[in-house]
Amino acid sequence: MASTMIPDIVISRLPIYLRALDRLAQEGHEVTSSQELGKRLGISSAQIRKDLSHFGGFGKQGTGYKIHYLKEQLRQVLKVEREWEVALVGAGDLGSAVARYKGFTERGFHITCVFDSSPDKVGKKVGAFHVQSIDKLTSEITERGIQIAMIAVPAEHAQGVADQLIAAGVRAILNYAPINLNVPEDVHVQYIDPVLHLQRMTYYLP
Amino acid sequence: MASTMIPDIVISRLPIYLRALDRLAQEGHEVTSSQELGKRLGISSAQIRKDLSHFGGFGKQGTGYKIHYLKEQLRQVLKVEREWEVALVGAGDLGSAVARYKGFTERGFHITCVFDSSPDKVGKKVGAFHVQSIDKLTSEITERGIQIAMIAVPAEHAQGVADQLIAAGVRAILNYAPINLNVPEDVHVQYIDPVLHLQRMTYYLP
Repeated sequence: MASTMIPDIVISRLPIYLRALDRLAQEGHEVTSSQELGKRLGISSAQIRKDLSHFGGFGKQGTGYKIHYLKEQLRQVLKVEREWEVALVGAGDLGSAVARYKGFTERGFHITCVFDSSPDKVGKKVGAFHVQSIDKLTSEITERGIQIAMIAVPAEHAQGVADQLIAAGVRAILNYAPINLNVPEDVHVQYIDPVLHLQRMTYYLP
Repeated sequence: MASTMIPDIVISRLPIYLRALDRLAQEGHEVTSSQELGKRLGISSAQIRKDLSHFGGFGKQGTGYKIHYLKEQLRQVLKVEREWEVALVGAGDLGSAVARYKGFTERGFHITCVFDSSPDKVGKKVGAFHVQSIDKLTSEITERGIQIAMIAVPAEHAQGVADQLIAAGVRAILNYAPINLNVPEDVHVQYIDPVLHLQRMTYYLP
């Protein structure tokens, strides 16, 4: 089960399956099927069975998937059965909102340091965190061995911040700045830009 | 140029091209090429040329794309050359952060009404908006002819809110609640769930 064997597109769907399974469990279900999952997610049941078969297949034909078991398996595959430390760069409006978002901690991602370049913000509290000077970024991230960071700085500073983070050892970046980042091949980037999602829908409106 | 002729996957990339072109224009460029765009976006130049050819082709071999012209064309195709009214449901921590996010207005999406079901929140101000009772949702959206809404309510209420919005005439939903929505075929949904993006990256970390 070498990680290189599983296509990225399959990996990208696993968190969606996990989220749906969490939901089913919360609703009191113990067993589900690829049909039920597919109906909830708008994905074909054949696709779901195929995706899950990459991991040895967690379900039996006719009896369905045991939700608790499948959840644990997916959590292990995705490495989210553990807790992760996350660094946040940018303590403006957007960064503050990110720092206060409870969904991260609830799902195992703990923001443990927040950085900003503005002297106005350094030392102030954002959510539960004291904002540190960006000059401390490299030493803090290196010492703590942090691999995941979120960028919430203006677009024109995002690439520079990303370069600094990567030099300090970060290997996964969630970028809230509305700009594409250039990163080495062994660094992963995901983007959050809500306007981009809105623009994907207006095309279809009358 | 019937809209049904252009694959959804192409439409989904156009806002990314538009964002990169905005950036290039801000940096003072007047002309670009599929190679330069491709390098910035990590997309092959052949793919970019093919995507743009769906709209009659905006560039000439050898001379590149005129950024201003291409931007205007993409904005028209995506229907973002106009201003859009948006309704927001949910005025908790997440909804408040969404209401205060300046990026929407800057790029033509104006939140003009905010709804919440909690009597604690109704009447209070969130950003520039007075929160209205969810009982007003249907009449407000119908009267204003609003087609776009954002959902920032707890997961267990998201489907009910979506159903109400759709009944009132909404055709595009940006869903911040961590749950998949079931909607009719003529309604478009996009999702914002930052944890899902983090989980797509941890798989690749040691």
